[in-house]
Amino acid sequence: MVDLMSDIDVLISEVGPRDGLQSIESIMTSEAKRDWIKAESAAGVREIEVGSFVPPKILPQLADTAEIVSFANSIPNLQVAALVPNFKGAENAINAGVDKITLPLSISESHSIANLRKTHQQVFEEIDKIVNLIISLPKDKRPHFEGSLSTAFGCTIEGKVEQKKVVRIAEKLIKMGCDEVGLADTTGYANPYQIKSMINDIWSAVGSDKMMGIHLHNTRGQGLANVIASLEIGLTTFDSSLGGLGGCPFAPGASGNIVTEDLVFLLDSMGVKTGIDIDKLIEVRSHLSKSLPKEELYGFVPESGLPKGYIQVNSGGRGWGIN
Amino acid sequence: MVDLMSDIDVLISEVGPRDGLQSIESIMTSEAKRDWIKAESAAGVREIEVGSFVPPKILPQLADTAEIVSFANSIPNLQVAALVPNFKGAENAINAGVDKITLPLSISESHSIANLRKTHQQVFEEIDKIVNLIISLPKDKRPHFEGSLSTAFGCTIEGKVEQKKVVRIAEKLIKMGCDEVGLADTTGYANPYQIKSMINDIWSAVGSDKMMGIHLHNTRGQGLANVIASLEIGLTTFDSSLGGLGGCPFAPGASGNIVTEDLVFLLDSMGVKTGIDIDKLIEVRSHLSKSLPKEELYGFVPESGLPKGYIQVNSGGRGWGIN
Repeated sequence: MVDLMSDIDVLISEVGPRDGLQSIESIMTSEAKRDWIKAESAAGVREIEVGSFVPPKILPQLADTAEIVSFANSIPNLQVAALVPNFKGAENAINAGVDKITLPLSISESHSIANLRKTHQQVFEEIDKIVNLIISLPKDKRPHFEGSLSTAFGCTIEGKVEQKKVVRIAEKLIKMGCDEVGLADTTGYANPYQIKSMINDIWSAVGSDKMMGIHLHNTRGQGLANVIASLEIGLTTFDSSLGGLGGCPFAPGASGNIVTEDLVFLLDSMGVKTGIDIDKLIEVRSHLSKSLPKEELYGFVPESGLPKGYIQVNSGGRGWGIN
Repeated sequence: MVDLMSDIDVLISEVGPRDGLQSIESIMTSEAKRDWIKAESAAGVREIEVGSFVPPKILPQLADTAEIVSFANSIPNLQVAALVPNFKGAENAINAGVDKITLPLSISESHSIANLRKTHQQVFEEIDKIVNLIISLPKDKRPHFEGSLSTAFGCTIEGKVEQKKVVRIAEKLIKMGCDEVGLADTTGYANPYQIKSMINDIWSAVGSDKMMGIHLHNTRGQGLANVIASLEIGLTTFDSSLGGLGGCPFAPGASGNIVTEDLVFLLDSMGVKTGIDIDKLIEVRSHLSKSLPKEELYGFVPESGLPKGYIQVNSGGRGWGIN
């Protein structure tokens, strides 16, 4: 597997082809997905969550995920990720040849039952089987296995989620054999103070090498403020969605991944290396507007453009306003 | 004058009645302005920039500023602020009885000429006359005089603005007798790194008691991220506009003050005291939609609502997710 962080400071994991497409009614053709993934990779994006291994009758939008994984695997320097809801999904993902699988576990058990139709105990059983499958594989065939801590910052069903509970489940997942846990603000409830406090507590419990990424929503406009808080503490991987496509269809009132274009601008302007060419990234939006004419795209930077005289870090700039 | 900070951590200065109204075509009636200001003050907002003392033919939307100041002065615990472009405006503002006057000085001289139709030297001459007028008044009649450092983070005409130039002009304004300088990201170019670096440099030059506030735009979606950076360094006053109304009409491509509702939620969720009741604040939007039916209102929190189980700091809560 490529060392993704060798020449970048922050890894942006594009989740649009999974999280975006699963939450809209339009179905993107496989050809359009391939074009999107190819173009976004060419813009410098190193990790893309290309789909989800769920039954096609639940998410017909993602029925071609195995085929898309196979295509994405042919792109050099791209880490190919997929979501899996259970052991069966993980098995299919591994057969398709993904580099990384992410299994979401909702800290709020009510949300877990609504989202994955499983109690915590049932999810742990799936994780156990997945870990056993992975360790049965030759080392070079093992995908990176991440347990995603969904609704970590609050739940639209249960309300407040205790931080201690998040930490306890993070510890359990690492002990069970997940390579990593990831934080997810599924409901767009998180604030910068909470983000820092949560990361500190989880790192104290499992070590900072066992949690490097966060999935933030911009539901209350606070997404990029939470990025800054996460970055200051030291997280280095951020999920986002091109054009802000998508959100979580099972959390009522929760919508809106942070927008990849705005995230890249924020980081680039501070001199943080992402390896991504913003101009090329913004051009990728045309793939979405052409293939999903009914869907709305979001993003401030694509509307306003880059500052006058702006030189991207990617093109040798040092960040905006950095003397 | 009231000690605004005695029971709050952060002062939110609502600039919608000035910055918002000056940049839209619709003209709000004086009655609607009074209702808006009264309602927003009742929601807990302690400072409102109620207008601008410019010739009515330039900004007919703000022709009734003196009358609005007089009304706002009758509201207890409200600091009444106004923008002034020159000495004449300051004289009128003082006669109307404002608590605070703000004179914008664009660090980019090209922008200064486009915006105020004045070179830097000409603006300094106006400031000098204003300071002389203020010190000629009895102490209890003197308004707080702020010089606002516009285009401090970059200019749509000149591009990059040197940080040293901002610091030099900040020093000059304080030496000339301004009580305070304020930072303004007029063009929406600022990033969190630049914000921290700029504040540090200005504080080193003039002292932290001489710059307490910042005026941020959300042009590139980075407004609240910049709030977090400013807050972490220690700024305690933030301008914002209810419903995101407005922006700078003279900076092409620059639009969008940060939204008061989203700002208050961000701060409140972290446990920062603003003294503002978010529910009441959101209700004030109805004044805008009724009196400005053609204008679009912005804001994430008014769309998404507060998190389930959320208790405002203002109502005895401690912030979201704070254990």
